[in-house]
Amino acid sequence: MQRFPQPLLTGYRNFMTGRYTVERDRYRQLADAGQTPHTLIIACCDSRAAPETIFDAGPGELFVVRNVANMVPPYEPDGQYHSTSAALEFAVQSLKVKDIIVMGHGRCGGIKAVLDPNAAPLSPGDFIGKWMNLVKPAAEQIQSNSIMTTAERQTAMERVSIRNSITNLRTFPEVKALEDGGKLQVHGAWFDISNGELWVMDKESQDFVRLDG
Amino acid sequence: MQRFPQPLLTGYRNFMTGRYTVERDRYRQLADAGQTPHTLIIACCDSRAAPETIFDAGPGELFVVRNVANMVPPYEPDGQYHSTSAALEFAVQSLKVKDIIVMGHGRCGGIKAVLDPNAAPLSPGDFIGKWMNLVKPAAEQIQSNSIMTTAERQTAMERVSIRNSITNLRTFPEVKALEDGGKLQVHGAWFDISNGELWVMDKESQDFVRLDG
Amino acid sequence: MQRFPQPLLTGYRNFMTGRYTVERDRYRQLADAGQTPHTLIIACCDSRAAPETIFDAGPGELFVVRNVANMVPPYEPDGQYHSTSAALEFAVQSLKVKDIIVMGHGRCGGIKAVLDPNAAPLSPGDFIGKWMNLVKPAAEQIQSNSIMTTAERQTAMERVSIRNSITNLRTFPEVKALEDGGKLQVHGAWFDISNGELWVMDKESQDFVRLDG
Amino acid sequence: MQRFPQPLLTGYRNFMTGRYTVERDRYRQLADAGQTPHTLIIACCDSRAAPETIFDAGPGELFVVRNVANMVPPYEPDGQYHSTSAALEFAVQSLKVKDIIVMGHGRCGGIKAVLDPNAAPLSPGDFIGKWMNLVKPAAEQIQSNSIMTTAERQTAMERVSIRNSITNLRTFPEVKALEDGGKLQVHGAWFDISNGELWVMDKESQDFVRLDG
Repeated sequence: MQRFPQPLLTGYRNFMTGRYTVERDRYRQLADAGQTPHTLIIACCDSRAAPETIFDAGPGELFVVRNVANMVPPYEPDGQYHSTSAALEFAVQSLKVKDIIVMGHGRCGGIKAVLDPNAAPLSPGDFIGKWMNLVKPAAEQIQSNSIMTTAERQTAMERVSIRNSITNLRTFPEVKALEDGGKLQVHGAWFDISNGELWVMDKESQDFVRLDG
Repeated sequence: MQRFPQPLLTGYRNFMTGRYTVERDRYRQLADAGQTPHTLIIACCDSRAAPETIFDAGPGELFVVRNVANMVPPYEPDGQYHSTSAALEFAVQSLKVKDIIVMGHGRCGGIKAVLDPNAAPLSPGDFIGKWMNLVKPAAEQIQSNSIMTTAERQTAMERVSIRNSITNLRTFPEVKALEDGGKLQVHGAWFDISNGELWVMDKESQDFVRLDG
Repeated sequence: MQRFPQPLLTGYRNFMTGRYTVERDRYRQLADAGQTPHTLIIACCDSRAAPETIFDAGPGELFVVRNVANMVPPYEPDGQYHSTSAALEFAVQSLKVKDIIVMGHGRCGGIKAVLDPNAAPLSPGDFIGKWMNLVKPAAEQIQSNSIMTTAERQTAMERVSIRNSITNLRTFPEVKALEDGGKLQVHGAWFDISNGELWVMDKESQDFVRLDG
Repeated sequence: MQRFPQPLLTGYRNFMTGRYTVERDRYRQLADAGQTPHTLIIACCDSRAAPETIFDAGPGELFVVRNVANMVPPYEPDGQYHSTSAALEFAVQSLKVKDIIVMGHGRCGGIKAVLDPNAAPLSPGDFIGKWMNLVKPAAEQIQSNSIMTTAERQTAMERVSIRNSITNLRTFPEVKALEDGGKLQVHGAWFDISNGELWVMDKESQDFVRLDG
């Protein structure tokens, strides 16, 4: 066991002696009754943007998918393994969540890579390159804009990518039907790591509006 | 904005007025310098098993992939979108994490589904069914055991699945090379939602051993 | 006398000068009135799992059968010598115990032997091999599972064996009748030598649940 | 769990908070290294004569068989289940114990039954009756003695039965060979529940001699 990362061992002990002692009954009840999270969050793997931290969420609240750049692929009912589509299906059909949040954030490494004209594959498999192809057409449009700064292009692309994922979400027939029926809501959000701000997408204008802190 | 889930709005305000005020400088510094997480955690989407909560982790510590049943597919350098493989590549090649944890947990819905002989597709796309095919052969062996209880089969399969993901991790040439070179360590962990216990996989025996709380 | 094992002579003197001086009257009264143990325990011969130690039991409390792997054979009213069946009959019919506990334990040598595909007879009589045939069909199912670790198979089999003994207990018409009439209860328990934990079988699910230490 | 016998739950808690805290390392080491008991004790199920109590034995010291009237059947290499022979084989061949003790005691219910001319079967299976047939010829001799008191016949028979079991022990070829080779010793002992006295059988005279308390 001594080879298990020490920070995690220390953190786990903090959890057990602190937060867990308060939430013991909650965990027990969630184990017996099963989970009924109200929300599915599709977030980034980034170590600086954990949904449970940003939304101060307790056990049982959020069903969370995390992939690079918080993306949703379009509906592809083929024989392949679709990690994100599987989680989406489980959250919507089995857990019947009421809200889906696609949450992006500033300084996203995946977005930075897709905007970098000189980006080289990270490995022969080039999995990041292929994964980011999901937003390649949009990225090329942003890239071609030479009058925005690099930072402006980055932020713009992060938000474009959230809207792109929301568009793809609606290609899943069940999501579309539930949303049209008023049984499910789809939201966009963007977290600014540099100052803790949360920006939420306005349903009508599709703009991101800063929440009052 | 009023349509954004109220629990998330409330939680975000708690974060900003509480934890963030303490970690403001840390977020600022992480935004400027970029993230350098020490660990990649591949965890489940389950709302009851958030890595940041269980490991009491602060911003910047954990790069987190979350998919149904915390699975890693085998190395497939084809043209497809591979969400988990992309995150793995980014964490290992770009962020150079020192440890990878595959963390499973009790009462896992994905594992329950793959062990259920009567499980029907959740939707015409059957994304969960296809995703869980990653452990179907193992699940069939566990299923065929009629003398262990349902709960015993579930726990056994949750642990077998973690070992299966670790085996798949090592099919990625870069992971294999770094681990063989002593630059990367791969670990298994299993969280018991019902009582908060964390069980860690022993490197030699592959058994899961409970940490002292 | 000098050939009588010295540790036993020393231990006996400790008993007489210590515990016995406190329990003298109790022994006297138990000798005159006879024993009325409340519980029959069917336990293993293992030197690490003595019921009186684990349950801190005093004289007169526990009627204890100990055989290899704490097994109960099915009801066989033939002409043979049936050691365990005789003790069971005496405890239930004559002493009228209110509870029967089948107590297994971790690292059981008998279970290890029946799961070992290369196990050879310990002697020409092969008494262990024949005795363990009582759980051979179950053992073959567990053995065939190649994806659980050796230790996982051992623990699973130890618990399956306890359930098997409880099933056999109920083939004794008197046990069945008393249990159905609410006059007798049958329990399963499993002791973990490595950490002192006691796991008790849940009546409904048949799962083993750890007692809080 | 609440249906598990309360005295056992209380006793177990006493064990964990008391004796176990002192012997924790010993249990851990016994779990890792396996058991190496120096002695096999064949004792009675009687609740008033627990070997670990009488010999103040710690974990790992005594491999204990307990059946009604602490009997050893003769060597019968047939296809039947032989509980006691299996334990004997395991202790001698696998654990290589250095001493075997056949320990009887006063007020033995099994001996009382075999001496009772009016004893009726306890159940249709009559397992006690068949089991005690192991000493029936000797019992008939003792029974026929009308000038000893009932108590004298009982004590005499308890000691005759111990010698009978020792004789049967020596019908096992491996036991005989090891004893003849000086690698194994066989002892008889008799515990007086009424006053705590331990009587040990003299090797030459076969008499039982009281140990100085």
